[in-house]
Amino acid sequence: MAGPQTVIADARRHRARYLEELKEFVRFPSISAEPARAPDLERCAGWLVRHLRSMGLTSARVIPTAGHPLVLATTRKVPGRRTLLVYGHYDVQPTDPLSEWWTPPFCPTVRAGALYGRGASDDKGQLFAHLKALESYLRAAGEMPVNLICLIEGEEEVGSPGLTRFLRAQGRRLGADAVVVSDMPMAGPGRPAITYAMRGALSLQLDVRGPARDLHSGLYGGAVHNPAQALAEIITGLHRPDGRVAVPGFYRDVRRWSARERAYMRRVGPNDGRLAANGKIRTAWGEPGFTLYERTTIRPALTVNGMAGGYQGPGAKAVIPARATAKLGLRLVPDQDPAGIERLIGRRIAALTPETVTASLRTEFAAEPVLVDRGAPAVRAAYAALERGFGTAPVFVRLGGTIPPVSTMQRELDAPIVLMGFALPDDGMHAPNERFHLDNFFRGIETVVWFLDALGSPAFSSRGPGPAARPGEPP
Amino acid sequence: MAGPQTVIADARRHRARYLEELKEFVRFPSISAEPARAPDLERCAGWLVRHLRSMGLTSARVIPTAGHPLVLATTRKVPGRRTLLVYGHYDVQPTDPLSEWWTPPFCPTVRAGALYGRGASDDKGQLFAHLKALESYLRAAGEMPVNLICLIEGEEEVGSPGLTRFLRAQGRRLGADAVVVSDMPMAGPGRPAITYAMRGALSLQLDVRGPARDLHSGLYGGAVHNPAQALAEIITGLHRPDGRVAVPGFYRDVRRWSARERAYMRRVGPNDGRLAANGKIRTAWGEPGFTLYERTTIRPALTVNGMAGGYQGPGAKAVIPARATAKLGLRLVPDQDPAGIERLIGRRIAALTPETVTASLRTEFAAEPVLVDRGAPAVRAAYAALERGFGTAPVFVRLGGTIPPVSTMQRELDAPIVLMGFALPDDGMHAPNERFHLDNFFRGIETVVWFLDALGSPAFSSRGPGPAARPGEPP
Repeated sequence: MAGPQTVIADARRHRARYLEELKEFVRFPSISAEPARAPDLERCAGWLVRHLRSMGLTSARVIPTAGHPLVLATTRKVPGRRTLLVYGHYDVQPTDPLSEWWTPPFCPTVRAGALYGRGASDDKGQLFAHLKALESYLRAAGEMPVNLICLIEGEEEVGSPGLTRFLRAQGRRLGADAVVVSDMPMAGPGRPAITYAMRGALSLQLDVRGPARDLHSGLYGGAVHNPAQALAEIITGLHRPDGRVAVPGFYRDVRRWSARERAYMRRVGPNDGRLAANGKIRTAWGEPGFTLYERTTIRPALTVNGMAGGYQGPGAKAVIPARATAKLGLRLVPDQDPAGIERLIGRRIAALTPETVTASLRTEFAAEPVLVDRGAPAVRAAYAALERGFGTAPVFVRLGGTIPPVSTMQRELDAPIVLMGFALPDDGMHAPNERFHLDNFFRGIETVVWFLDALGSPAFSSRGPGPAARPGEPP
Repeated sequence: MAGPQTVIADARRHRARYLEELKEFVRFPSISAEPARAPDLERCAGWLVRHLRSMGLTSARVIPTAGHPLVLATTRKVPGRRTLLVYGHYDVQPTDPLSEWWTPPFCPTVRAGALYGRGASDDKGQLFAHLKALESYLRAAGEMPVNLICLIEGEEEVGSPGLTRFLRAQGRRLGADAVVVSDMPMAGPGRPAITYAMRGALSLQLDVRGPARDLHSGLYGGAVHNPAQALAEIITGLHRPDGRVAVPGFYRDVRRWSARERAYMRRVGPNDGRLAANGKIRTAWGEPGFTLYERTTIRPALTVNGMAGGYQGPGAKAVIPARATAKLGLRLVPDQDPAGIERLIGRRIAALTPETVTASLRTEFAAEPVLVDRGAPAVRAAYAALERGFGTAPVFVRLGGTIPPVSTMQRELDAPIVLMGFALPDDGMHAPNERFHLDNFFRGIETVVWFLDALGSPAFSSRGPGPAARPGEPP
């Protein structure tokens, strides 16, 4: 079997074609949130299956779900070799506001060394780095150092319902020894990273109801508790003035991190100025005693994602609305349990609700926080691979956001997960002018080649102290 | 000249046609707040002019304004006769929430003796009672006992900017000796009323801005003061927990009323149970020490008419909105000055705004509170007319709402104003399923006939003690 250098030489020879194929992939307007796009997702899944087959993965097939289909492909299973599951998604975010795009979102265009298009980095481009590494491996080396499973979904941007059901039913049977996901940013340009923690999410809808119907605010103003005002009062009661969440018990299970861990975070993560600049935040805010990076990663948060009540058109309308609504988004950290937190929030809201109105709370979705075992063999392999692929040692970073299928895979596959992103923090995932820097695409392919090679090597066959235990890094 | 009985007989003969014509009028979706409806308002004004001309008011014409047009029509001016100005408006409130309507708002439908449709009572139906009384008078009597001016605007629901400018420039030249407005409810079914006081209004828009653009709530949740949350905090700070408005100086100029006046209000006005039942309010709320009727009439109020920020569609979106907005509606009483109150609110909001966000306040419109001279000849004529039209003596009531042009007309025309409504308190003005009871429509027409007759009679030629000075009623 030829070594990784041969495989990398093959990948380099095929860069131009690999880019053209990625453009083909990005051209599908596979927006999972828009029902009218369902046929485009279907077509995109079909294209992926044909593409995987043409690469030699003759097992590739579409797996229907109640929503958009899954794509599953496997290499021939060789006993004694580790089995790696590569996860990715072919669905993309909506494109609005469309007017802010420099080039049409589904007309992939190379500008200044980056491929622009919706999905270029989230997640078509990052997923494609894995597929193209696999293709070069199969061609140049004839076989793989690991057994490989590609599991690609079309509902990541809408909560992964089909994937969750599939994994619950069939997850263990896949026999994955490790999972790799590339769907997140690096620490910065030239700064490779392994994500070792992600916050969980809990999405709630709060409805406050007052009078049976909308009332004229002239005729009834002063005699009825306005549901919009009552909602404002409840929302206000969910925070203390200092920025802490004012829900009894909310912080009880929040894990305390060692001084060493926090020192590491300060060293590798963005400082307050950098984080505020990234978000164009004029004045920061939040829980005292923590940096902004800590507030958005190791501390939980409660945000109002949406709020609505009464008249919202131009001008004025003299109305006391019968109902007002808020969408509350929580980000949870280890060891907070979404179901337990939901109960605490419900209890707090009940306590804050005056008898003049009624409040009801509904859960939209929940995802558990994720922690990665930094000493797992696959993580050690990823560390070594990123070091070779990017020419510099990666850092371990925390992500404030949530990739819901990751906690699902952790639970249902019972395998260590490697979160190794190739995008940049300003690649515009979910925003207009999403892009993927070609340098990171090609380095990503080579990194995956090194990763597959390392995973197959006896040097990474057992849990070790790993890169995380290097001096100055958290245990 | 034939007497009022002949005119009334004519009006009764034409009831079916009058109702059909009112339906035509209600069919125009003349929502003044929605810019896209401007052509519908234009068409509605044109229809009114043609309608008035067909009734014999050949002078009827459209008067353009910077916004929606005015309609002006006059009868031939006979010297020595009093000149009455009939005010009304052809614009209507928005229809949302549309899903709560039993029948489409612009598809007028008779159910159980009432005409359902947006504008049926506010103000197309009530205005139409005047127009149809006028039509029957002209037809049956050949001429009018007074000189008549019909002034109908299309911007009452948006602050009457065009009418205000028109009255400032031309008001005195109209030479009105009295003004009549029917755009308010009676005291209840079979209980006619003359409104002798209305609250003023101040409509404000509050914008709160935070980060320069929408942020991902996973990546930034906990590090930035959410504008929707900050807005909720500001709104909360505008009231004390007991329901009083928490704006320093807000109550300073509020007039105190005599025990006699308050006793009269208790006797003729709705008690707490009635008012709560009218509004389908399960649990009342508000300033301690006052009945609900007092809270909605002689006490000022601050209500949230609308509140919006972030995502409001189905499901969830992980966003921290860059901006959140509230529409604040104040109802003011004698002797509160809208401009002064606006300054106090602005100061309070500035004090409540944390340095993490910026808040800006814009005035949409302002209208002064109104008090009517209960001894004026026209009011005495209205009293007599209501007594004949409804078969029972009217009561004097206060209205919590505001008809902004009334204070403008009081100021610019310098003529006594008669506020004589034909709608019912539960006719759903500004709400879904707005309606106008046909019995009140037809009694309204006959009342107006009696009113025109009385106005022309020498018995009501001078200010008298009037009905207001009857035993037990306020001076």
